Amino acid sequence: MAKPFTFDLIARDGRARAGVFHTPHGEVHTPIFAPVGTQATVKSLTPAHLHEIQANLILANTYHLYLRPGDALVAEMGGLHSFMNWPGPILTDSGGFQVFSLAGIRDIDDDGVTFKSHIDGSTHRFTPERAIAIQENLGADIIMAFDECAEPHERAYNEGAMARTHAWAERCQGAKTRSDQALFGIVQGGIFPDLRAQSAEFIAALDFPGNAIGGLSVGETKQEMHAILEVVDGILPENKPRYLMGVGTPDDLVNGVMRGVDIFDCVLPTRLARHKAAFSGRERINIGKAKYAKDPNPLVEDCSCYTCQNFSRAYLRHLISVKEMLGSTLLSIHNLHTLIHLAREMRQAILEGRFDQFAKVYFQHPISNI
Amino acid sequence: MAKPFTFDLIARDGRARAGVFHTPHGEVHTPIFAPVGTQATVKSLTPAHLHEIQANLILANTYHLYLRPGDALVAEMGGLHSFMNWPGPILTDSGGFQVFSLAGIRDIDDDGVTFKSHIDGSTHRFTPERAIAIQENLGADIIMAFDECAEPHERAYNEGAMARTHAWAERCQGAKTRSDQALFGIVQGGIFPDLRAQSAEFIAALDFPGNAIGGLSVGETKQEMHAILEVVDGILPENKPRYLMGVGTPDDLVNGVMRGVDIFDCVLPTRLARHKAAFSGRERINIGKAKYAKDPNPLVEDCSCYTCQNFSRAYLRHLISVKEMLGSTLLSIHNLHTLIHLAREMRQAILEGRFDQFAKVYFQHPISNI
Repeated sequence: MAKPFTFDLIARDGRARAGVFHTPHGEVHTPIFAPVGTQATVKSLTPAHLHEIQANLILANTYHLYLRPGDALVAEMGGLHSFMNWPGPILTDSGGFQVFSLAGIRDIDDDGVTFKSHIDGSTHRFTPERAIAIQENLGADIIMAFDECAEPHERAYNEGAMARTHAWAERCQGAKTRSDQALFGIVQGGIFPDLRAQSAEFIAALDFPGNAIGGLSVGETKQEMHAILEVVDGILPENKPRYLMGVGTPDDLVNGVMRGVDIFDCVLPTRLARHKAAFSGRERINIGKAKYAKDPNPLVEDCSCYTCQNFSRAYLRHLISVKEMLGSTLLSIHNLHTLIHLAREMRQAILEGRFDQFAKVYFQHPISNI
Repeated sequence: MAKPFTFDLIARDGRARAGVFHTPHGEVHTPIFAPVGTQATVKSLTPAHLHEIQANLILANTYHLYLRPGDALVAEMGGLHSFMNWPGPILTDSGGFQVFSLAGIRDIDDDGVTFKSHIDGSTHRFTPERAIAIQENLGADIIMAFDECAEPHERAYNEGAMARTHAWAERCQGAKTRSDQALFGIVQGGIFPDLRAQSAEFIAALDFPGNAIGGLSVGETKQEMHAILEVVDGILPENKPRYLMGVGTPDDLVNGVMRGVDIFDCVLPTRLARHKAAFSGRERINIGKAKYAKDPNPLVEDCSCYTCQNFSRAYLRHLISVKEMLGSTLLSIHNLHTLIHLAREMRQAILEGRFDQFAKVYFQHPISNI
């Protein structure tokens, strides 16, 4: 078995990359889309469903699990893999993104962040050291540095947040004690190419086993996102995986892979599912619409997922209309399958040296009804 | 293949029976517990889950499906089996029980019932003929006569309701047109043994391919229920299956089989699951309790269900505490598995001539914490 946390870059096609990241719980074949299990469960799905859609890397959220059931309890239960019964690789975020989203009930200083729980208003404090200690209790294979995710358009604020993110990245590295977890650094810098370049250089120099691009998909345009990805792609080391945090429409995946990204995660597929929406190629179907009431076809004609192989749009619309839980489950299966399958298709195209062609065909289908 | 709707009584042990009922969608091995899929979905479970817990006969509710999505739509989509993707046997109730539960918004006469929808207050009318026509649209293997389920303790009212039930049973028989559906008659008569005997004789004489016992588990004592089962057991033909409607605690199953019942259904296992409760032998566990927060054990030590094989009480309590859908799904799997498995165990005991011993051991475990 390969040494944990090495990354084998096995093929390139333009800027697109196919690789294998080795973890104590198995290989992560990139490009990959990782479903989000916020509270140690990918909403409405059993691990058996996740195996069936060929999920591999799963995310869980440090902020939520710290509050409930508590990271010490998860540690006592043998860590996240055992607790949620996911034998494959797991990644936890640092809690930073959630904490900084708590506008009005958090207070940032150079040492860390004091915040109030969204559940009961109780006061808590995260520092880089604390975020690492919590993630060591949770026990994921990949853990994330504690960073400050700022509003992306304000330059002065982004300079300060980036400086804190850099100082905290070093402190996280110093605080880490477990050798069976890989700590990834995070590049910040808002929409400013020069700040992003500076941040990518700083983070790259710390020699993490993997690097992440944070603070995107938080209000910037797609053009701004792509420009930042191109800047960062030219600087981050090629022999380490790159993880684009919290980004996950089908278009984003293709655009990201075109710009050197290896790993994606997003709550979008399961959130859309709870709001009646299903991916269909580059488009979205709102299955609640009356026009689907007697539609005997599957969500997507050539989709191989359990939902499309077994149920009509008419049945799915019925489930959604009468608010049956199974509706969310079946749409979640389809939406996650779509992104996981898209990432696998891209990987295959890269391995076969035809990714450019793949992307060209993909973007030829115009979006008509988002 | 045996002729549809014949019942092979293959073993008896005391009053307990083991048999096979033949339907166009497969054999129903009795005794059996049938999960309820009120709105054409067993709440929170996929058909794959149902296969895994070895479900066979599934119920669906005529009243609910008539209102949404409408029985004509289900017919247009190929009937319930195709619509909900359940290849095994399906039974629909007549809608009677739900309609008579709509106290204050329904009006009964000898011809039928006028009622208001619980969803939008619109006015509808069910007659025996209409209930059969709707069930023919839905297309289940077993359909039920339209009956009047009365409050069980009022004698005069029960006499009238029974008379209507009998007249309606004949009208249902006359209205039925499909040869690929079995119509079951329903015995009524409240808690009154003489009325129940009279009803069982009347219904038996109509020579339905199966007979049901209605109007129980609606307010009477367990002793009253058992006395009625014993009266009816002595009268209903032995070569037809007996279905005890809407009854389904573990104790009820054993008590019913002891008194000649073959088929059970109940919403209890999935409803309990949505209220944090799990079957554990004759007892119930409220998994929301704080004492389970760090409990690494499965719900039930020797249970072979997916939930008990893969998850701790601590994880289930976490899911329930943070209101994750997966909590209901996993408890539903366990609760349904428990009843389906109990019915299968009883069948095996009957086949091996040791049902008395089985029941004796079963009731030796006292109930301590319901």
